[in-house]
Amino acid sequence: MPYFDAASSAPLHPVAREALLASLDEGWADPARLYREGRRGRLLLDAAREAAAEAVGCRPDELVFTPSGTQAVHLGVAGALAARRRVGRRLLHSAVEHSCVLHAAEVHEAAGGTRAELAVDRTGRVAAGDVAAALTPDTALVALQSANHEVGTEQPVEEAAGLCRESGVPLLVDAAQSLPWGPVPGDWSLLAASAHKWGGPPGVGLLVVRKGTRFAPQGPADERESGRSPGFENIPAIVASVASLRALRADAGTATEAARLRQLVNRIRTRVPALVPEVEVVGDPVHRLPHLVTFSCLYVDGETLLHELDRAGFSVSSGSSCTSSTLAPSHVLRAMGVLSEGNVRVSLPYGTKEADVDRFLEVLPGVVRSVRERLGVPSVTAEAPEAGSAAEADEAPRTAAGAGSEDLVVDSLGRRCPIPVIELAKVIGKVPVGGTVTVLSDDEAARQDIPAWCTMREQEYLGERAAERGAAYVVRRRV
Amino acid sequence: MPYFDAASSAPLHPVAREALLASLDEGWADPARLYREGRRGRLLLDAAREAAAEAVGCRPDELVFTPSGTQAVHLGVAGALAARRRVGRRLLHSAVEHSCVLHAAEVHEAAGGTRAELAVDRTGRVAAGDVAAALTPDTALVALQSANHEVGTEQPVEEAAGLCRESGVPLLVDAAQSLPWGPVPGDWSLLAASAHKWGGPPGVGLLVVRKGTRFAPQGPADERESGRSPGFENIPAIVASVASLRALRADAGTATEAARLRQLVNRIRTRVPALVPEVEVVGDPVHRLPHLVTFSCLYVDGETLLHELDRAGFSVSSGSSCTSSTLAPSHVLRAMGVLSEGNVRVSLPYGTKEADVDRFLEVLPGVVRSVRERLGVPSVTAEAPEAGSAAEADEAPRTAAGAGSEDLVVDSLGRRCPIPVIELAKVIGKVPVGGTVTVLSDDEAARQDIPAWCTMREQEYLGERAAERGAAYVVRRRV
Repeated sequence: MPYFDAASSAPLHPVAREALLASLDEGWADPARLYREGRRGRLLLDAAREAAAEAVGCRPDELVFTPSGTQAVHLGVAGALAARRRVGRRLLHSAVEHSCVLHAAEVHEAAGGTRAELAVDRTGRVAAGDVAAALTPDTALVALQSANHEVGTEQPVEEAAGLCRESGVPLLVDAAQSLPWGPVPGDWSLLAASAHKWGGPPGVGLLVVRKGTRFAPQGPADERESGRSPGFENIPAIVASVASLRALRADAGTATEAARLRQLVNRIRTRVPALVPEVEVVGDPVHRLPHLVTFSCLYVDGETLLHELDRAGFSVSSGSSCTSSTLAPSHVLRAMGVLSEGNVRVSLPYGTKEADVDRFLEVLPGVVRSVRERLGVPSVTAEAPEAGSAAEADEAPRTAAGAGSEDLVVDSLGRRCPIPVIELAKVIGKVPVGGTVTVLSDDEAARQDIPAWCTMREQEYLGERAAERGAAYVVRRRV
Repeated sequence: MPYFDAASSAPLHPVAREALLASLDEGWADPARLYREGRRGRLLLDAAREAAAEAVGCRPDELVFTPSGTQAVHLGVAGALAARRRVGRRLLHSAVEHSCVLHAAEVHEAAGGTRAELAVDRTGRVAAGDVAAALTPDTALVALQSANHEVGTEQPVEEAAGLCRESGVPLLVDAAQSLPWGPVPGDWSLLAASAHKWGGPPGVGLLVVRKGTRFAPQGPADERESGRSPGFENIPAIVASVASLRALRADAGTATEAARLRQLVNRIRTRVPALVPEVEVVGDPVHRLPHLVTFSCLYVDGETLLHELDRAGFSVSSGSSCTSSTLAPSHVLRAMGVLSEGNVRVSLPYGTKEADVDRFLEVLPGVVRSVRERLGVPSVTAEAPEAGSAAEADEAPRTAAGAGSEDLVVDSLGRRCPIPVIELAKVIGKVPVGGTVTVLSDDEAARQDIPAWCTMREQEYLGERAAERGAAYVVRRRV
């Protein structure tokens, strides 16, 4: 039963398990106490800090353990911003940061700070030049992830760090996704990461604040972890987490495994568009995490797709709105301007078997086909996807009364992703080239997916206008 | 090697260890995911929440897990205060709350809120009448611990909860110390606790917000744990913690063990003053935790005492300033107005052997004697402590020039606890009854320990006045 969602959480590494067991008996006491049980805990904690610092590439006294990667980001953003309050209150971050960064930014904004977003291109990558241009004198902090959690695109962190240093602005790197694969290069100022992404147990994050970086911890005081992370130290889990990170790095294991998984991901990147019609593989093809690939399938309901893949034995994730409770598609896919419907993220854990990837590639086309069939999408082929091929569908779209053949109106109000796009595809062939189709929809995903569909199908997206309910999206037939 | 510091952290319960091992393989995935690994995690988490709620005496949807007891308090105080901001911004708490409550209160004050302290009597107990009197209309929240972490005194939480309900003010109970021994009675509104105090692993706290209690989570948003505790859920540790709590409660085990430990603590409470001269047992003799007893030894350096007890095989804790890095004696002992020097807290873990307690009672007198000898305190006896018996010491105190025999001045500037008190004791016999001794000291502990010594030795404390360095403490000889 292959688990392909390492980017959410990796299974516990066997070395972490062993280390956890051993340290449960040695690391339960308060390391601030001077009796033997406390001293033993302190020794374990100090040793773990040294080893973690070595793996991260920092000094031990620059690194504190937090209860999660989320809290590492929250604490880091708040502490860095507060320390630079007199310089300025502007937080600059990429549009594709993890939600924990965005939520920390919201708190900053609610308290009177300002924020600005760095846009990304269609691969999800920030241009270093944009960072340079955005570094105003009142910028207190820049937050840039090392690699994106949804599409795997690596950011130009090293270059951004250099630019930030030149301007005297600290750079905080959310390294949650990349740290399992190696240290983050460059002269960044703060770094956050999460141990359960690299096979450590839950309950451990880490926050690095490099010497010389001004930092003012926020929230209630607590003397533990240099005053930067409140709460009783979770020594057994910390020891286990660091053991796992060390094990990954030992004997160049990380590099070898990264290369192997990169091959498997390449296979998915190449084969999926050949095997499944109407698919868009998203994310940077070169600057990317070794183990992660994301693609979106037109005319597919993401929740059903994930459910069917689960039934077929594959655990994957999705940034589709139809799999989330928020109804809004992933902000990452939105910022990239790519299709969100039928979105699948595959992230291979260490040790993933080649045969499992091949089996996934065998199973996927049939699963997508069956979901599309259930949604009434006529058969589409990978080899020659043809615009408007859905027009011959039996079920006539609900077109508004009075619409002429030059300009059709499709009423998709009250219908959720992927129905609006399916209905658009069904009728586009009914208007002549140059004619328009207007889709009425109150599904938030349509705003993203109709333009993305136009790009994929080489139709012209004319824009949206407000409607009595939802919005009217206008598409001109070009092919 | 007996460990007598359960109030800091209890060794991992064997049941917790087993549950942790089992859930490491089942509970590492993201419980928000819909695939099988996620669903498995969700099931474990839901079951743990139900069991924890049953042990606490609340509904499962009222209880969230946090990464520590400290964070449970921080999150609970902030969320309750924010929700009642329009009613008022006054936080009322006892003078002997855990530092995590006080630190949360400091943040509240820094943000423009106000706070008021409920005083305690010499046993460390708040009077319920004082709670009633202090409940002003603008009181947003009352924080009262169920039992004190340093001296074991139980607070009148049930009564306070009733008074708070009548006034419509929520009561937050820090139950970290008492929850291992049973649910907190009464109609409180919020409750916080910490699993490593009851034999769970580190990394788990719990926060209960009873239905009908207004609550507005502060800090960056996070959808996990009902939006009340940010960060990836630590399912294995949560499962282990709840297993341990259930095990303690099973078959009335808690009550039986509590009764047994209460007997052992009674033995310490009775025997220590008989075996060790010049000792004050502090805390309420009746309303107290079953497993915890605290006493202070005159003329003893707390750090050395703990060190010597550790060498003799006993791990205990202390609220003495001389064992802490802050140089300030415990705020709890200060609020009680009792001696802080030579302070020892004994807190027996579940299953403590009677023989170990007896051995402690055998060892303690010799250890205290040797520490006193090293400090130049002449022999004192438990049976007939005699005021001024130290006066015959060989080493003459450094008395200020020009001091007459009626009124002596002792210069203890630059000397740390317990020296100022030792020097006072050495010279008190040199002035006639009615004469005074003035102690010059810049040690913060003197402010607390000189009045406490006067109470113990039935001398009259006249007060302090400012001096060029530190303060001058004036004592009149009465006996």
